[in-house]
Amino acid sequence: MMIYADNAATTKMSRAAIDAMLPCMERDFGNPSSLYSIGQRAKELLEQARADVAAVIGAAPREILFTSGGSEADNQALRSAAELGRRSGKTHIISTAFEHHAVLHTLKRLEKEGFEVTLLDVHEDGLVRPEELQAALREDTCLVTVMFANNEIGTVQPIRELGAICRAHGVLFHTDAVQAMGHLPIDVQADNIDLLSASAHKFHGPKGVGFLYARKGVPLTNLIEGGAQERGRRAGTENVPAIVGMAAALKESAANMQANAERMTKLRDRLIRGIGEIPHAALNGDAARRLPGNVNFCFEGIEGESLLLLLDDRGISASSGSACTSGSLDPSHVLLAIGRVHDVAHGSLRLSIGEDTTEEEADYIIQNVKEAVEYLRSFSPVWRDLMSGKSSFIL
Amino acid sequence: MMIYADNAATTKMSRAAIDAMLPCMERDFGNPSSLYSIGQRAKELLEQARADVAAVIGAAPREILFTSGGSEADNQALRSAAELGRRSGKTHIISTAFEHHAVLHTLKRLEKEGFEVTLLDVHEDGLVRPEELQAALREDTCLVTVMFANNEIGTVQPIRELGAICRAHGVLFHTDAVQAMGHLPIDVQADNIDLLSASAHKFHGPKGVGFLYARKGVPLTNLIEGGAQERGRRAGTENVPAIVGMAAALKESAANMQANAERMTKLRDRLIRGIGEIPHAALNGDAARRLPGNVNFCFEGIEGESLLLLLDDRGISASSGSACTSGSLDPSHVLLAIGRVHDVAHGSLRLSIGEDTTEEEADYIIQNVKEAVEYLRSFSPVWRDLMSGKSSFIL
Repeated sequence: MMIYADNAATTKMSRAAIDAMLPCMERDFGNPSSLYSIGQRAKELLEQARADVAAVIGAAPREILFTSGGSEADNQALRSAAELGRRSGKTHIISTAFEHHAVLHTLKRLEKEGFEVTLLDVHEDGLVRPEELQAALREDTCLVTVMFANNEIGTVQPIRELGAICRAHGVLFHTDAVQAMGHLPIDVQADNIDLLSASAHKFHGPKGVGFLYARKGVPLTNLIEGGAQERGRRAGTENVPAIVGMAAALKESAANMQANAERMTKLRDRLIRGIGEIPHAALNGDAARRLPGNVNFCFEGIEGESLLLLLDDRGISASSGSACTSGSLDPSHVLLAIGRVHDVAHGSLRLSIGEDTTEEEADYIIQNVKEAVEYLRSFSPVWRDLMSGKSSFIL
Repeated sequence: MMIYADNAATTKMSRAAIDAMLPCMERDFGNPSSLYSIGQRAKELLEQARADVAAVIGAAPREILFTSGGSEADNQALRSAAELGRRSGKTHIISTAFEHHAVLHTLKRLEKEGFEVTLLDVHEDGLVRPEELQAALREDTCLVTVMFANNEIGTVQPIRELGAICRAHGVLFHTDAVQAMGHLPIDVQADNIDLLSASAHKFHGPKGVGFLYARKGVPLTNLIEGGAQERGRRAGTENVPAIVGMAAALKESAANMQANAERMTKLRDRLIRGIGEIPHAALNGDAARRLPGNVNFCFEGIEGESLLLLLDDRGISASSGSACTSGSLDPSHVLLAIGRVHDVAHGSLRLSIGEDTTEEEADYIIQNVKEAVEYLRSFSPVWRDLMSGKSSFIL
């Protein structure tokens, strides 16, 4: 059995997305900035995609800026808000400790440039408390950036409430919705969002493309300078095939969202129950307020990497956390942020199932995770010390 | 007859590029940062593509950084060199007045940040004089950036000589090779290049992908912060399908380069001779030291835009200059840089033929350009004034 259970890292492109891209690759290849018919045909496809994407999140088409992906969108959103803040003497930014590195590393750069950053606690359940945001706001706060759903533990923030607090204080609110887009309902108006980042390959669209929603009236600073594409806000020939593919994937995801979420939530909970039977294992993040497809556990006495290799050997693709940092030996900053200690954080497993995952596959995963954890513990010195009482169990 | 003669704006994807991309879109969709087999398969494809691209330009694979395109590569190259310069107190940059806006606008930003920019004259023939670069170099020069071949008039700079001068002075040398890559032989060692930008969709690869060559030892500053992809120099999940497509397109272009260049040069010269028969018309840029596919004329007494629409009506896709600025009413900064006056610069036509353009198509273009120019002049008040002697011909 081959089971892909790492949809948080990337997803397989949908047939709809591929079928939408192919004609743009083979026939409608024009540069949308060109005046002749082939160019104008590409321009029409581009603007239809923009309207389609905008409609899914309740935005106006001109509020959608296409980027090369979620990281670029995050970088541009934060830099733009910081630039605006600086102009009015506001240099305080609020975020959380478990944001994606595209946000955290940009914040680090901004700190070097004179900004002050407050990171909100995400608590053991992986959730921001709105009253803590309220308390952290200052006169000189120019931006609040909190991810919609976490990429490792899948917890879904109370975005609407956080947005409302920001709006009441006249502070820009950005959310990295890379993991949420296409999986959770998002309405930028109702959710009080000013800036939002998304990435197509997380919802069965192509890689190398994403978008930034910027509410009308929020001026953007270019990250990439050059030609006047995207109304002067992002230089470079528009990636029409990928943009069209993204729009097709997003429309399909939005149309099937509720049914998919219901089915996936059931499977997710089945996985959580099954894997939860393993002794000295603990679910990371709130059990209910999480993405429909996300399961994330810590196991005492094992190394996450070995677990992944064993599972891969049995046909299961899973991860220990973010793919973006998988080369690193440091434990996940997300797990540390929710209070997992260093050793425990090393023994993590993230399963992110897809729309087509079956009950049979879920049971196969449970069975194999159980066996693999038991096997790894059987020759783990850390586990031996725990069992003999030389050291104490944490989970 | 339908003739696409705007290959400088974008090219149709080659079958080889599409065929290389499809399996990555449909099957090998893994995240190359993931440890399991599907991810490692994607990683292998990514690294094979990197080796293939590197081989074409005589670089080492680790000197190739994949980007979302030429503009991003230009931005990152210039920002990296500027950052390096600033650290050692060198804040002078040398470039030319007719660079692509991805370079010129980045230079504008750097000027605001305290850098001083000297723009070399490109003279009437669109060529930089090496001795003028030599004279412009200063103790505090940190970067010279000169495009390999111009995107509007196609002139090819004496890159090897310019690079040698920079190397002798210990100054970093960047070249925007977006128009040259895949069309002209480039060897980063022999050509003394430290930094080079390229874009796949200019050589029959996909849109939304390009690369930056950075010579070993030249540290890059991230333009996009986040995950540790591309050895920490460019965040964001790698766009494996597009990268693989780019490598396939570049390999094919490189293999057929000489034969294509010979055939296209003949057709180019046929077009230049034919269109040159039109009275009061002038070729822009040196007749010989130009890209094999580039033809660029100014015609007195007409508007370039009207000419394009007429040609489009007859099945010919052409442009007046860069697609990146086609929405603008300003005359081309490139044509102004080679000394064309405002009015004449407005009446420009760029034809950039492809590898598959035929002699019959070239003759069809010549015939139609002649007819269209004559037709437009027949009711042009500017032309009437010129003919009646009220104003004087420039060309």
